[in-house]
Amino acid sequence: MASQSKTQPTPELVFDTLNSYQRTAALKAAIDLDIFTAIGEGADTVAALAKRCKATERGVRILCDFLAVVGFLTKRDQHYSLTEDSALFLDRRSPACMAPAANFLAQPQTIDSFKDLATVIRAGRPNLPTAEGSVSPENPIWVNFARSMGPMQVSSARALAHILNAEAGKKWKVLDIAAGHGMFGIEVAKQNPNAEIFAQDWNMVLDVAVENARAAGVEARYHRLPGSVFEID
Amino acid sequence: MASQSKTQPTPELVFDTLNSYQRTAALKAAIDLDIFTAIGEGADTVAALAKRCKATERGVRILCDFLAVVGFLTKRDQHYSLTEDSALFLDRRSPACMAPAANFLAQPQTIDSFKDLATVIRAGRPNLPTAEGSVSPENPIWVNFARSMGPMQVSSARALAHILNAEAGKKWKVLDIAAGHGMFGIEVAKQNPNAEIFAQDWNMVLDVAVENARAAGVEARYHRLPGSVFEID
Repeated sequence: MASQSKTQPTPELVFDTLNSYQRTAALKAAIDLDIFTAIGEGADTVAALAKRCKATERGVRILCDFLAVVGFLTKRDQHYSLTEDSALFLDRRSPACMAPAANFLAQPQTIDSFKDLATVIRAGRPNLPTAEGSVSPENPIWVNFARSMGPMQVSSARALAHILNAEAGKKWKVLDIAAGHGMFGIEVAKQNPNAEIFAQDWNMVLDVAVENARAAGVEARYHRLPGSVFEID
Repeated sequence: MASQSKTQPTPELVFDTLNSYQRTAALKAAIDLDIFTAIGEGADTVAALAKRCKATERGVRILCDFLAVVGFLTKRDQHYSLTEDSALFLDRRSPACMAPAANFLAQPQTIDSFKDLATVIRAGRPNLPTAEGSVSPENPIWVNFARSMGPMQVSSARALAHILNAEAGKKWKVLDIAAGHGMFGIEVAKQNPNAEIFAQDWNMVLDVAVENARAAGVEARYHRLPGSVFEID
């Protein structure tokens, strides 16, 4: 990024921005290869990473050097280290890891929809193969959303249930509209055994929420109702 | 970008990077719509820009607000202004304008090749439909390169010819290998009428160099030779 304190004009921001799609691709690739977990566990040289991540040394070296340049790693004497943020948010052993979010945020289908943005801006609406695009009924993109974005919402959902004083155990009926991964309702159910949660979303997406409810140890009864609602006790 | 002076961990850099392909798309779209020239010429409101750039107000507003956030425009009282760098490098009326570079740097074919970078890193080489990819003979990508990247090389080429003391007018024979747009040889020919330039590239690309030589007022004789060489006097 161009520094705010510069005095000479520079084309740096123009070049950086025209190439910034490469940053997305590099971070997505590092997450796909699980580079951050590998470094966190001690595989911190090109040779060790290539072996551990089943990739070529050439590819790993170029990728990790780029990740060091853009701020995800540090490099000293041929050894890479995680930054504080990378250790917290990109190493899969961290409870705050948000690596799965890359599968939704940087999925090819979404990136493709930005391919000809001038046409979108001329029309004022997305340039999509179908009229509904990502909001067409039962579009599998939202199953991907529920699986990818659920884990990183757990701590927010837990905090929200606490703010709502769920622990008081009042007899609640909670409607979770567009529930997705279901985490917000599930955390209420965990903190308040007397709450009954009704989660609404498309059927394919609710399957993920039911999985998450069962994994969290709360009872989920799934009713295939008009409008796709399921119930957690 | 995450600040270097922060003390609290933040997922800011992760989110910013997973979404940074959007920066490329937005700048490319603004260049395609010629937003920067329009603002430079005084069309500085959403309504004026939409009319001038033949786009919807909704689309223009979202695009220009994003461009203000990422540092290409400023916005005050519903009026947009160019930054110093945008005026110099993105307004087509500026001699230093590098807007055409977007057609090469941010072309869909190049962005697509970053789609599954993990596979590339595993293999240590590009994941391409043909063995040669962008270096296959007479690949039209290099015609696009020559047309898009030529204008921004003129000032470097002029400086280089000056450093080489071309003005002394010695009887030179200059070989310009992989000449592309031809600008480096053309600037030598302009400063030294006794120089003879032999420019080598694929035939399709040399057509662009010949056009550029003629536009610059230097005599170009084109010989369709094995290896694609043309000659400038």
